Amino acid sequence: MGLFSKDIETLDDLFVHTLQDIYYAEHQLTKAIPKMAEKATDPELKQGFEKHLKETEGQIARLERVFEMHGQKPRQVDCPAIDGIIKEANEIAGDVADKAVLDAALIAAAQAVEHYEITRYGTLIAWARELGRSDCAAVLAETLAEERATDEKLTKLAESKANMRAERVTEPA
Amino acid sequence: MGLFSKDIETLDDLFVHTLQDIYYAEHQLTKAIPKMAEKATDPELKQGFEKHLKETEGQIARLERVFEMHGQKPRQVDCPAIDGIIKEANEIAGDVADKAVLDAALIAAAQAVEHYEITRYGTLIAWARELGRSDCAAVLAETLAEERATDEKLTKLAESKANMRAERVTEPA
Repeated sequence: MGLFSKDIETLDDLFVHTLQDIYYAEHQLTKAIPKMAEKATDPELKQGFEKHLKETEGQIARLERVFEMHGQKPRQVDCPAIDGIIKEANEIAGDVADKAVLDAALIAAAQAVEHYEITRYGTLIAWARELGRSDCAAVLAETLAEERATDEKLTKLAESKANMRAERVTEPA
Repeated sequence: MGLFSKDIETLDDLFVHTLQDIYYAEHQLTKAIPKMAEKATDPELKQGFEKHLKETEGQIARLERVFEMHGQKPRQVDCPAIDGIIKEANEIAGDVADKAVLDAALIAAAQAVEHYEITRYGTLIAWARELGRSDCAAVLAETLAEERATDEKLTKLAESKANMRAERVTEPA
């Protein structure tokens, strides 16, 4: 985040900067998620990515509302963290030949994305409250709830796929 | 993760690859955490980083045990995700002038690190179980519990520091 030295002086500056960081991250995800959906073979996983793309677009709109509520123009700043997480997701997906294993890798990559978002939105909500902006906190909390639900869905999907693989192994030949 | 196309064929390959990824990440953190400790001004936060550095060294030793249990030599592979998270932590820390705001930024950065580790260890444990390696899963679960505890401590520290800042604001001049 940020290009210039010592340009963050107050918690308000840090809040706005982190909003810009996650605003960039959500935009990058609107480009990354369709590629993950394309690679996924399990129909439920593919659908999940497509649904999450729509959610991500809604989350961008919500961030724009928060910027506006806080008297700021929506702006993106580079977020090396999400760039690294997406780069890793692309690399691992390129490395995996087997379809079922690729799906497992895609779920893991998507969960790394969700956890990054969960921590950032959690922090933003705490700072918004501290700054007396419980109105902004309430909007951000809607997104946090969505990210947590997505993470839980991914865990369940990973478990159900694992059970399917295990059944396949124990089936009589 | 990974440099060559299609070099992961089985869930076992993916498990080993992700072990190598987090093994690299933990090593990078042993270099990054002392810098965060140095920048922190709150004594409790500084101590927390120092304690977590020791924990990280123990987590590296635990990963080496898991490699050995699984018949593998410990090896690191590049992990762009942790590189990005650490880069972002360094950049934001360089941008913040005010000490209390810097501490808030450091806590947020540390929580991004913890969440990355939580998701990776969670995935590794699930895959270890699926591969019939509940022995490896048990060792990895010790680290996951430590990471979760660190994340909770950071949340509590953030809250207590926020309350302190709020009290300072409302103190009679």
